[in-house]
Amino acid sequence: MVIYHLIQLLKQQPIRGEVILVPNCNPVGTNIKAGEYTLGRFDPVNGTNWNRGYFYDESLIHDFAQSVQDEESIEQIKERFRQQIKQILADKLEEPWGIGLAQRLNLKLQQLAFDADFVLDLHNGPVSTRHIYVPEYAKASASLFNIPHVILIPNKFAGALDEATFCPWWTLQTLLSDKRQQLVEFGVEAFTLEMGSQEVINFSEGEYDADSILAYLNAKGCLLGSDVQPQSMRRIATMLKNYKVLYTQQGGMVEYLAKPGETVKKGQPLAKLLNVDELDTPNATELMLAECDLIPMLHFPSASILSGTQLYKCFTEYFEL
Amino acid sequence: MVIYHLIQLLKQQPIRGEVILVPNCNPVGTNIKAGEYTLGRFDPVNGTNWNRGYFYDESLIHDFAQSVQDEESIEQIKERFRQQIKQILADKLEEPWGIGLAQRLNLKLQQLAFDADFVLDLHNGPVSTRHIYVPEYAKASASLFNIPHVILIPNKFAGALDEATFCPWWTLQTLLSDKRQQLVEFGVEAFTLEMGSQEVINFSEGEYDADSILAYLNAKGCLLGSDVQPQSMRRIATMLKNYKVLYTQQGGMVEYLAKPGETVKKGQPLAKLLNVDELDTPNATELMLAECDLIPMLHFPSASILSGTQLYKCFTEYFEL
Amino acid sequence: MVIYHLIQLLKQQPIRGEVILVPNCNPVGTNIKAGEYTLGRFDPVNGTNWNRGYFYDESLIHDFAQSVQDEESIEQIKERFRQQIKQILADKLEEPWGIGLAQRLNLKLQQLAFDADFVLDLHNGPVSTRHIYVPEYAKASASLFNIPHVILIPNKFAGALDEATFCPWWTLQTLLSDKRQQLVEFGVEAFTLEMGSQEVINFSEGEYDADSILAYLNAKGCLLGSDVQPQSMRRIATMLKNYKVLYTQQGGMVEYLAKPGETVKKGQPLAKLLNVDELDTPNATELMLAECDLIPMLHFPSASILSGTQLYKCFTEYFEL
Amino acid sequence: MVIYHLIQLLKQQPIRGEVILVPNCNPVGTNIKAGEYTLGRFDPVNGTNWNRGYFYDESLIHDFAQSVQDEESIEQIKERFRQQIKQILADKLEEPWGIGLAQRLNLKLQQLAFDADFVLDLHNGPVSTRHIYVPEYAKASASLFNIPHVILIPNKFAGALDEATFCPWWTLQTLLSDKRQQLVEFGVEAFTLEMGSQEVINFSEGEYDADSILAYLNAKGCLLGSDVQPQSMRRIATMLKNYKVLYTQQGGMVEYLAKPGETVKKGQPLAKLLNVDELDTPNATELMLAECDLIPMLHFPSASILSGTQLYKCFTEYFEL
Repeated sequence: MVIYHLIQLLKQQPIRGEVILVPNCNPVGTNIKAGEYTLGRFDPVNGTNWNRGYFYDESLIHDFAQSVQDEESIEQIKERFRQQIKQILADKLEEPWGIGLAQRLNLKLQQLAFDADFVLDLHNGPVSTRHIYVPEYAKASASLFNIPHVILIPNKFAGALDEATFCPWWTLQTLLSDKRQQLVEFGVEAFTLEMGSQEVINFSEGEYDADSILAYLNAKGCLLGSDVQPQSMRRIATMLKNYKVLYTQQGGMVEYLAKPGETVKKGQPLAKLLNVDELDTPNATELMLAECDLIPMLHFPSASILSGTQLYKCFTEYFEL
Repeated sequence: MVIYHLIQLLKQQPIRGEVILVPNCNPVGTNIKAGEYTLGRFDPVNGTNWNRGYFYDESLIHDFAQSVQDEESIEQIKERFRQQIKQILADKLEEPWGIGLAQRLNLKLQQLAFDADFVLDLHNGPVSTRHIYVPEYAKASASLFNIPHVILIPNKFAGALDEATFCPWWTLQTLLSDKRQQLVEFGVEAFTLEMGSQEVINFSEGEYDADSILAYLNAKGCLLGSDVQPQSMRRIATMLKNYKVLYTQQGGMVEYLAKPGETVKKGQPLAKLLNVDELDTPNATELMLAECDLIPMLHFPSASILSGTQLYKCFTEYFEL
Repeated sequence: MVIYHLIQLLKQQPIRGEVILVPNCNPVGTNIKAGEYTLGRFDPVNGTNWNRGYFYDESLIHDFAQSVQDEESIEQIKERFRQQIKQILADKLEEPWGIGLAQRLNLKLQQLAFDADFVLDLHNGPVSTRHIYVPEYAKASASLFNIPHVILIPNKFAGALDEATFCPWWTLQTLLSDKRQQLVEFGVEAFTLEMGSQEVINFSEGEYDADSILAYLNAKGCLLGSDVQPQSMRRIATMLKNYKVLYTQQGGMVEYLAKPGETVKKGQPLAKLLNVDELDTPNATELMLAECDLIPMLHFPSASILSGTQLYKCFTEYFEL
Repeated sequence: MVIYHLIQLLKQQPIRGEVILVPNCNPVGTNIKAGEYTLGRFDPVNGTNWNRGYFYDESLIHDFAQSVQDEESIEQIKERFRQQIKQILADKLEEPWGIGLAQRLNLKLQQLAFDADFVLDLHNGPVSTRHIYVPEYAKASASLFNIPHVILIPNKFAGALDEATFCPWWTLQTLLSDKRQQLVEFGVEAFTLEMGSQEVINFSEGEYDADSILAYLNAKGCLLGSDVQPQSMRRIATMLKNYKVLYTQQGGMVEYLAKPGETVKKGQPLAKLLNVDELDTPNATELMLAECDLIPMLHFPSASILSGTQLYKCFTEYFEL
């Protein structure tokens, strides 16, 4: 939906550079179903997450940093680094024994992503409000989108496309800044944007999100003669380590009392559970209370839960940006 | 959820007769999942609908009607008819070559149901508003529940539990009324109550529905000393043949513009589709308009649809009850 | 696999008429998976069998029979009947409220099938040996294929494509034979061919099956200058009512002792079950014995079964053809 | 099946120590199905592998090794190490925000496993022959089972239960051997035994595997007065790094020409593919040839494959043990 609106908006807007839009990144995410709902997070054959097969090897970046000559310009370094990483990705795709489907698709995406200065990975969540993952070094860019919730992530590759994109550049610029004793910046940024709930489509919300992306691109100088600006809004942030998952202890039916985006104080109720095996006992219901002040970003999309279900993901220790 | 509240309410309420509550009718409907959502409408092994394996044989009812003696009282006829049908169900459950799982579960339910005077089959739908299926001969009972939408169904067995329950009694009382030249009534009624959306649990809505059921039971004389009454409300009805399914012609993403329970006039928009294969063409979007005046009862629960998807089920040719 | 070999063989073989090959009849049967195995018998959204949405209305055939003029030739009648049925199918595909996906696909197949004189619906089963469904009126054709097991089916529409194809012709020729007091035959035949096990592909077995089909087509005069003949073999048949399903009474692990195609005498073991909840009790294992002399055609493909599982489908009361 | 036979055999066999049998390690592996086959490798809600949630922290083992006193005996060290690890596992199970279902089940298994001297993790594969994963330090034990194919694995935790069990002990004994300048051995061993194909149950094969396990236990001194011995057989081994997966490049139908356990020479055919989109072109079929001498241990269980499917897992660079 966001890509649809971006196409409409960019048709009327001169741009500097090239915009590549990838509307579909895995073979089941759009319209393969099991039951009435859409699958899409993992390969139904083997459970492989469609978004964890990217390549990252920190030692290669150290080796590359060693190889950088004093006289190389930022642009020369960027170009040479891109060629090297993209060659490795191409080699991996040609492994003689082959590679798995998720990894193959991921490496092809990564080839596209590694050519770009700005990579925006658009996601949605179970039942969710807007939030964005921002690398700490690009914290200033968090305010360029119309997204009120910000997760600041460290320079640690945990498998996702945004990390596979920014970790190499961040590591390299850190190493080169040390080496050259001056700030080296490549201006490459990557973000994961969580747009909302996976089973809700809304044309006007999609247009809002497309505007938000244009505001970022404009701030980065990609739009010619545009005056699109990020909205003024209160932005709340947390560090990735304080973005916490609340798991259930038992299964049953659940009413979600706290809605994504709402502030919940310590001790306030998050959810009320009905234990279907104890309907006629005093243990029939259970309130789950907030362990601390928090803001839920998303909750599980089904009213029927098992033990060990990711019930909520929450901002804790949050602060205003 | 409704059963939980019924238990709480009935603990404090003397009753005439016996109430049997069956909270779970198939092995996957509560907490087996494929992806994040709950399965439950059909056997995932073979696609068999969990609610279409009931027994009905019209010729047996004709034979039974023949066998009724002039001197038999209503109660004697009821008792003898019950014994006969329940014996057939028991025999079917003991077939030497066995029977399929769905059919086995259905016949066991039907054994329970055929002993009862009032059978309420509680369902939920995809994204749905409250509605109830009422046999035409029991139309007067439609106003005893707190349910604003009523589907009147004819004496034709189409496979569901309510029909498997009321069709034999309706047929028998029609045959005997003819034979005796006077109105014969057994006072047996069966309904399918659609409570709402399948992936939404809400304790207060569940209590509302439990109250609605008590109002019906009270009107039928099952509660002692209760003054619970059905609410006064506008009730809209349609005949089953006018309860229509709208199927999609093509797949894509969909925004549901008409909400369940809302009145939609002919020509007004129901849904807006995004054709993901045509994002950059004039065919990217399509409005689906109402073919006639209608009220949607439910829509498909996912925002991603295929061609031939049941997008909406709608009251047409509806009238006030 | 059979279609692949038919293409290779028919390239070198002049034919009379037209051969239409449909390699894929539903959207999930080829390469959509849940787990490691292939789905394909039913729509994973709603459980609808992909092969039960064909059109059949016996009263239309009676009406058509009434309309046949004494002077109409067989060819004229066939042509007119085809046009009428195909028009109905086209109308159904254009229903203003749409139709479900399975029904849509089935009606399109049926449009193709109703134009043909010979319709061969190629299937496979769980773990299965070759068998064929043959309408009783075309029993003589059973020996024209290289298939050793034959199920003779009556003139009763139960939902499948072969029945949707032959029942109208069979009914019509029966009515017209009565009316004209002479044998009327249209020469239209339809069969369901069960080729073997669903998760086994074998190129040479596929070629054997393609040869078998050519033998039939040659006997029907469709091949020019071919001397391909059906193989001489013992052919065993049973009536559809004697083709019986054996269901399990309890779940567990199962060793299939009787292989598809093997003769099993009454009282001999079919399967040995391990009850996983009773591993340390005398009830840990259970032998399932044949209730009568039988030949299994297929058994369930998994070693883990539930209660009510279709364990075997068996010929009983079988005879040599 | 193997546990069933172990129970029968151990009932008649005095043992030294305690044998704990865990017949079922996840909620879907036994009898939950999607389609006709059994799921079981991953959580169908989120794709999490049921066998990768074990705890391992190498730094803890280094700290523990530091804490070991010169005068501590092997038994004292074992006891203290067990208590420490089990306390950590217990703490993790009590995390205030909860943990995911797969991890919870895994940690409970790991609590059991960390108390044991011999841990045998019984698995099965898609279509598979018997093979066993053996830590390099316990290579001598490979010949104590009746399993002809052996994969030798290094001291590197990759997530499975056997590694989660032996890596801590191996690391600790290596550190203490260094520290004490003498060989320290704890005698703890853990193996993953692959018994065969996941959808095949056979009582006599199960008994063979139970005998194999008794032979190992007897060699380890766990059986009293038993003379059960491992069979004399040719045993083939490979290093884990040479146990290679062959992925497909394209989807289609596949005939598996090489059977698990068969020796295949470089250049010999492994599989023949049918490209269903090219049935009438010269690209309809494709032979996949062995890149080097190899022995397949298993192949994919379905005849319908996608691109990027794990077609075969193969021993390469293998040698006689």
